[in-house]
Amino acid sequence: MRNIKLTIQYNGKRFCGWQKQNDSLGIQGNIEQSIKDITNESVKITGSGRTDAGVHALGQVANFNTECNIPIEKIPNALNSKLPKDIVIINAEEVNLDFHSRYSAKGKRYRYIIYNNRYRSPIYSDISYFVKYDLDFEKMKKEAESLKGTHDFKVFMSSGSSVKDTVRTIYDIDISKCEDLIVIEIEGNGFLYNMVRIIVGTLVDIGRGKIDNSMSSIIESKLRSMAGHTAPAHGLFLKKVDY
Amino acid sequence: MRNIKLTIQYNGKRFCGWQKQNDSLGIQGNIEQSIKDITNESVKITGSGRTDAGVHALGQVANFNTECNIPIEKIPNALNSKLPKDIVIINAEEVNLDFHSRYSAKGKRYRYIIYNNRYRSPIYSDISYFVKYDLDFEKMKKEAESLKGTHDFKVFMSSGSSVKDTVRTIYDIDISKCEDLIVIEIEGNGFLYNMVRIIVGTLVDIGRGKIDNSMSSIIESKLRSMAGHTAPAHGLFLKKVDY
Repeated sequence: MRNIKLTIQYNGKRFCGWQKQNDSLGIQGNIEQSIKDITNESVKITGSGRTDAGVHALGQVANFNTECNIPIEKIPNALNSKLPKDIVIINAEEVNLDFHSRYSAKGKRYRYIIYNNRYRSPIYSDISYFVKYDLDFEKMKKEAESLKGTHDFKVFMSSGSSVKDTVRTIYDIDISKCEDLIVIEIEGNGFLYNMVRIIVGTLVDIGRGKIDNSMSSIIESKLRSMAGHTAPAHGLFLKKVDY
Repeated sequence: MRNIKLTIQYNGKRFCGWQKQNDSLGIQGNIEQSIKDITNESVKITGSGRTDAGVHALGQVANFNTECNIPIEKIPNALNSKLPKDIVIINAEEVNLDFHSRYSAKGKRYRYIIYNNRYRSPIYSDISYFVKYDLDFEKMKKEAESLKGTHDFKVFMSSGSSVKDTVRTIYDIDISKCEDLIVIEIEGNGFLYNMVRIIVGTLVDIGRGKIDNSMSSIIESKLRSMAGHTAPAHGLFLKKVDY
């Protein structure tokens, strides 16, 4: 038996998210169907984690077991020929049988794109969060620094989540600006539910002066109500998974 | 009477181009309809030039005459509320009656985006040209330098065009790379039909080693067959018009 690790890009716009939901296959279901098309096997793929409806990926990872003997270098094109245009396999490699996309993951990097202009964009509307307010970019950059390191990030967890251990480590946060786009990249050993989207919403609220508190005092408060709004899903990209 | 200059962004994907065609309004027709919606006047707008089907704009310019007295600063939002999502007015200003979007233009700047990866992109597919071959970026940059200045650019004109004077001046050409994207920006006093797309196709053919001739010898030849292919419309953006 072989264990195949796939690296996947997708545009989340049309999908209900990674997982199947009611009548919709989800991204996972589409990939499972394409594997069936080329191997005749009904496999279940394991993703590094779910992504919500609308969220995109530049480097999602999933693995599956198969008895097929298709050469590994032919797998991406074989699957891509069966997949819809908005899901693309960009790499396939054979890994040890004990590799598990979710449990073996050591960290993840996300990207979030903000379109900051007075008027909406006809070009970037599906892949960015349109913010029409003036944003103090330097202040956002400075306050974001406080996110680095190991903290209890409970303040950035959606209130519905039941996770008990809310301590995580953020290795890196990078905020850059190119014309009307603000790109936020954040890498850590794990993320709470909606954590990246709430961090971005908080940075936007700080940048437009709606929140006056410092990021460090917000983190310390551990109160969801002290943080900002949840930025929308369609600006978020799962950029890579580290193993 | 007022003469109003609009700056317009659009995503060309859904459109037959700037102009009306058969049953399709085109971008021009959609804007004229939105002006009628807010002023009750049937106006004809004059664009800085046509863009082909699929071509996008970040700074197209058009003007129109009107008797309406809507304050100038309210015009973008008023029109945007009537326009489809993929056309956005980003500026309106009142200009002298002798201003003409086409005849007053002194130059234009275009952007062209290439997605250079082994596999197609689910994110950038509508706004970039997917090139799967390895490209020698440094060579493309170096050869592009020869385009600067005043030359007879007949070699980069689509064979169907009947333009006689094919001498143009290119002020600037800038090629940059960010991850899988190669962004080419080119500014000049005017462009022949499909000139930017043929220049990009020639740079791609040089970059992948399909064309060995230097850019300067290609220009000198004045033979369309010496230049490369015409890069597709959906990677092209009219970035700005200079007056």
